[in-house]
Amino acid sequence: MEGVDHLAHERNKSEFDVDAMKIVWAGSPHAFVVSDRISKLVASDPGFRKDNRSTLSRKELFKNTLRKAAYAWKTIIDLHLSEEEAAKLRFYVDEPAFTDVHWGMFIPAIKGQGTEEQQQKWLPLAYKMQIIGCYAQTELGHGSNVQGLETTATFDPQTDEFIIHSPTLTSSKWWPGGLGKVATHAIAYALLIVGGREQGVHGFIVQLRSLEDHSPLPGMTVGDIGMKFGNGAYNAMDNGVLRFDHVRIPRNQMLMRCAQYTCLCMPSDAKLILEPCILIRVSQVTCEGKYKQSDVPRQLVYGAMLYVRQTIVADASCALSRAVCIATRYSAVRRQFGSQNGGPETQVIDYKTQQSRLFPLLASAYAFRFVGEWLKWLYADVTQRLQANDFSTLPEAHACTAGLKSLTTTATADGIEECRKLCGGHGYLCSSGLPELFAVYVPACTYEGENTVLLLQVRDMSCKVSHEDCFSAGVQQETSRYNSLYDSSRAFNAMSLRCSKSALLEAFEARAARMCVACAQNLSNFDNPEEGFAELSADLVEAAVAHCQLLVVSKFIEKLQQEIPGKGVKQQLEVLCNIYALFLLHKHQGDFLSTGCITPKHAALANDELRSLYSQVRPNAIALVDAFNYTDHYLGSILGCYDGNVYPKLYEAAWKDPLNESVVPDGYHQYIRPLLKQEIRTARL
Amino acid sequence: MEGVDHLAHERNKSEFDVDAMKIVWAGSPHAFVVSDRISKLVASDPGFRKDNRSTLSRKELFKNTLRKAAYAWKTIIDLHLSEEEAAKLRFYVDEPAFTDVHWGMFIPAIKGQGTEEQQQKWLPLAYKMQIIGCYAQTELGHGSNVQGLETTATFDPQTDEFIIHSPTLTSSKWWPGGLGKVATHAIAYALLIVGGREQGVHGFIVQLRSLEDHSPLPGMTVGDIGMKFGNGAYNAMDNGVLRFDHVRIPRNQMLMRCAQYTCLCMPSDAKLILEPCILIRVSQVTCEGKYKQSDVPRQLVYGAMLYVRQTIVADASCALSRAVCIATRYSAVRRQFGSQNGGPETQVIDYKTQQSRLFPLLASAYAFRFVGEWLKWLYADVTQRLQANDFSTLPEAHACTAGLKSLTTTATADGIEECRKLCGGHGYLCSSGLPELFAVYVPACTYEGENTVLLLQVRDMSCKVSHEDCFSAGVQQETSRYNSLYDSSRAFNAMSLRCSKSALLEAFEARAARMCVACAQNLSNFDNPEEGFAELSADLVEAAVAHCQLLVVSKFIEKLQQEIPGKGVKQQLEVLCNIYALFLLHKHQGDFLSTGCITPKHAALANDELRSLYSQVRPNAIALVDAFNYTDHYLGSILGCYDGNVYPKLYEAAWKDPLNESVVPDGYHQYIRPLLKQEIRTARL
Repeated sequence: MEGVDHLAHERNKSEFDVDAMKIVWAGSPHAFVVSDRISKLVASDPGFRKDNRSTLSRKELFKNTLRKAAYAWKTIIDLHLSEEEAAKLRFYVDEPAFTDVHWGMFIPAIKGQGTEEQQQKWLPLAYKMQIIGCYAQTELGHGSNVQGLETTATFDPQTDEFIIHSPTLTSSKWWPGGLGKVATHAIAYALLIVGGREQGVHGFIVQLRSLEDHSPLPGMTVGDIGMKFGNGAYNAMDNGVLRFDHVRIPRNQMLMRCAQYTCLCMPSDAKLILEPCILIRVSQVTCEGKYKQSDVPRQLVYGAMLYVRQTIVADASCALSRAVCIATRYSAVRRQFGSQNGGPETQVIDYKTQQSRLFPLLASAYAFRFVGEWLKWLYADVTQRLQANDFSTLPEAHACTAGLKSLTTTATADGIEECRKLCGGHGYLCSSGLPELFAVYVPACTYEGENTVLLLQVRDMSCKVSHEDCFSAGVQQETSRYNSLYDSSRAFNAMSLRCSKSALLEAFEARAARMCVACAQNLSNFDNPEEGFAELSADLVEAAVAHCQLLVVSKFIEKLQQEIPGKGVKQQLEVLCNIYALFLLHKHQGDFLSTGCITPKHAALANDELRSLYSQVRPNAIALVDAFNYTDHYLGSILGCYDGNVYPKLYEAAWKDPLNESVVPDGYHQYIRPLLKQEIRTARL
Repeated sequence: MEGVDHLAHERNKSEFDVDAMKIVWAGSPHAFVVSDRISKLVASDPGFRKDNRSTLSRKELFKNTLRKAAYAWKTIIDLHLSEEEAAKLRFYVDEPAFTDVHWGMFIPAIKGQGTEEQQQKWLPLAYKMQIIGCYAQTELGHGSNVQGLETTATFDPQTDEFIIHSPTLTSSKWWPGGLGKVATHAIAYALLIVGGREQGVHGFIVQLRSLEDHSPLPGMTVGDIGMKFGNGAYNAMDNGVLRFDHVRIPRNQMLMRCAQYTCLCMPSDAKLILEPCILIRVSQVTCEGKYKQSDVPRQLVYGAMLYVRQTIVADASCALSRAVCIATRYSAVRRQFGSQNGGPETQVIDYKTQQSRLFPLLASAYAFRFVGEWLKWLYADVTQRLQANDFSTLPEAHACTAGLKSLTTTATADGIEECRKLCGGHGYLCSSGLPELFAVYVPACTYEGENTVLLLQVRDMSCKVSHEDCFSAGVQQETSRYNSLYDSSRAFNAMSLRCSKSALLEAFEARAARMCVACAQNLSNFDNPEEGFAELSADLVEAAVAHCQLLVVSKFIEKLQQEIPGKGVKQQLEVLCNIYALFLLHKHQGDFLSTGCITPKHAALANDELRSLYSQVRPNAIALVDAFNYTDHYLGSILGCYDGNVYPKLYEAAWKDPLNESVVPDGYHQYIRPLLKQEIRTARL
């Protein structure tokens, strides 16, 4: 049966132009061509195979990752790949590695926070990988609260050096990727002490290992922090621990950026440290030991965070779409129950319970794709404005990006696990690809801003606005909107929910606004606003989620107002947009009902409409996941393979497990035979 | 700082008798004593250490599991442990192994479905482990739908044998634990064919491997199905694949139970096959090739499912409480933000966002414990009735057990992952114990009845009742209840929510009933009821969840009506009961609002009350998890260790990773140095 497409009948059912949808998903014809070429290049090169990953021991896995990273670099050089293509290649190699941090954190930090001189010295070395860098910020005792970092950098004017030191156990650097075994250099963050005075946390370029024999330099205790979640996943990465014992570095290795702003251009894989980078200072220390606050506006430091977080939102749609692609294809292959007169059983994708769990995730993948595109635009716009000294849109851009990072990563991690469950028992096998996808993805909920902490930033911003500005004006506005919503002419009905996105959008707007106003009202009951924020923080988080969901829905609707070529493409996206919005409305109907944005009758109608939308998606489901254009290599899943030939592949794969190398298992003579022969009391165990 | 209790100040805050709570948690003084003794015995024996589990390769892990299983058996024999104690010992060894299936599925199947003669022959061998059994039911192509199994057992009257055969690839047995490498025998399920007629799926005792050299017998192709989710987890188990090529077994190895009913007593670890056992027949074939339907009532087969599922509910509270214990202790140790004047930062357990995620899970652990106790009682009651030929309570018991299995396992799997996230970045380390706990636990959502399929069984039962019986009478009843709820005297207010559990319970009852009635009404719009059930199945699942949550809330309230000794113990449980109910009310407020069971005002008041309850739990949180009485060995988590001395232990553990065996990693010369030295183009990769 090799070569037969077991999903051909599904593909024949689709009602739209899949090739046109591939362009929409990729973002542009150019982006599609690059992705398509590079993903096929990686898939066809046995040097990048990954199907054996789950059975390797930690040391074998790590060594294999070192090999792949070197091989990828060789490929990039041999084929003269552009920066864009090189980044895509690393993406499709699809394995966490020290290179992610080198390209995604180390180089950008030097570009963003280094002086011209520092950039000229260090960047060429880094670009050629003559040095390999990591980003040493988080400590054993400190993640989210960067201001609490304990590592010290004390200026010694006599030698014109900084003394980097770890004064406590909890000040040990902990988590940085690439630090454990590979990196030769680090950007290390430490509390600057000049003339006995603490001057906040700053970044320092510190050499870690000899460039000759790779041994750690004097004063460094460095190693790997040990195993992490999942079989392969981040165990391919040497997340590290590092203690400094009075390590001296020249003064010119403190990042002292003071000139104009050019730092926000980073490669697309800037995402791999655990926990956020907030409130780092960029300042200067003179050789006389004078501390000068940088003239780089504080706001600019936010720019780097914006960049990284918007790439995380873009990645969310990739990860979720992978899981959805696997679960959708397997749901069309798998049959269970419903056989009539000995005929084939029912495809599980035809069950409404399966559809009601799977199709909202399919819709979410598309929704996150489009909100990611918008965030990319927003980032470019903010960058332009910053260069013209216009900081006006930065706070809102920061709040949106933080909120959407939190919303999309949480939904994606949960969605991957839901897709795994939708594949039944076989989803629990590593060969399904889903355990690995989950374990690799889920730290995104924690790194670059823990998701709940981020939502509190959204609410801080949006509710402080409500509290201070809107509380008088806003409540009135809100009230008028409230009334208008109940105009009989605007009342929802099944028809309006189907035909009028404006009615849906209004419901989401009203819900977000009213939850925010309710929070503001509750806050006003507290004499001390700080205490109020602390006490009501769980409610504020819910209001922030409502705000972020409104953003995703509204950007999806905006996307549909653009011209979208290709037969039936826009119609499919309309259906997915409605599913996304109505699914959220159903899931959070408590919010909508309690704030009076909809009535129970509307909720019931929305639910009926949702079922009818699922029926519209059904014939197009396989084509909608084909539009992601993922190779079987990238998917890394037998259950999700393009041709749907699942069972023979599962069966073959099983025999490759190391346990099957011998028919009688190692341990039989010592531990099984004594049981069977009743010789356990005298056995050596 | 060795020996210092870093959580002593937390323990001193508690307002209740922890030792008395330990008895409540254990279920009885006797249960506490046994658990306490055996868990300490396991914890103190280095033969059972498990801290090295995550770094072992598959083969090492498996061999180590074989050793532990043999060592556990030796311990059981040497110490003359009772059956109860032996089961506890296997529980506290805390590693999936072939013994789980031998004791939990193989032996019970023979007891339940075997004739007297079969029991006399096989049970003594199994009890002494002279044979090791597995339970071979699921196939590559069939899990939930047992009636669709493809393996055949054809009776050959000439030799008085059955011929067991796998006619297709998808008929390969797939998943059975212990099958891959260890078991000498299997209960294999196959479609019985007698005289050319198919007679449904039956069980057969099949020898798999030689008792002399462990090699597979002729006609058997058997092996391991490969790696599964997680580092250790079920990779310690040899879930297997098996193809039969016309394997002949004597006629007396078909399970042919026909006598009176005695099968429902099983050991407590009967839980470890993937996917459910439904609709297996127990019949007889005579030597002349005559098929006789068994006189064992079909209902009795349900009894075995009831048993296994009620143990799964009991296990849910164990797994969830472990995760909650870890997250609660670490939340009291971990400090982040909020330092004032250089003082210590705030314990993260003091943040309301942390409390609003953690404390409902703490309450859920207790709630599941008590509903598990009730199910155990229910099971015993049903068993007694069955022995007296009273089948009247079986359908409801079956629906309750199925629904609660689904509800508690889903909530527990999600809860473990939430606890992991509540531990921030460090929760992602294997040394936190949470990745392993999740990966070991999560298959419970799929095995022994996939959770969504189970909820459809609940709705089938409850809604068919609604549809047929209640639809006339029921709606009226419902309406009267509806009206009474709105009696001003019964209206909810903050006071009644706090003081009157009956008001809360009524809200849960009304919600469950009205959702069910709404489904019934919607079903009546379909001409064909089958089609209606299929189309509305997602709604029916939601109604089933509402029904199951009502059960958990009502059983918690019933528990509180009992006498509970110990200073402050009952008060703590009252608080937890209210948290559990109000948390659900908040989470599902859409249901409560749309069915008119509460008003938006009530929802807001419930939310305020919830915050105040969190404040009441806070000082008792550590003591409430101490009451689970888990040893550090069983918890298997540095973050959750009893003394709270987290950071030094994390730091020490890191150095034990195999990657730290050498300072310069294996692979440096081949793959890192060529990068740094710009020699990649000529490197051999």
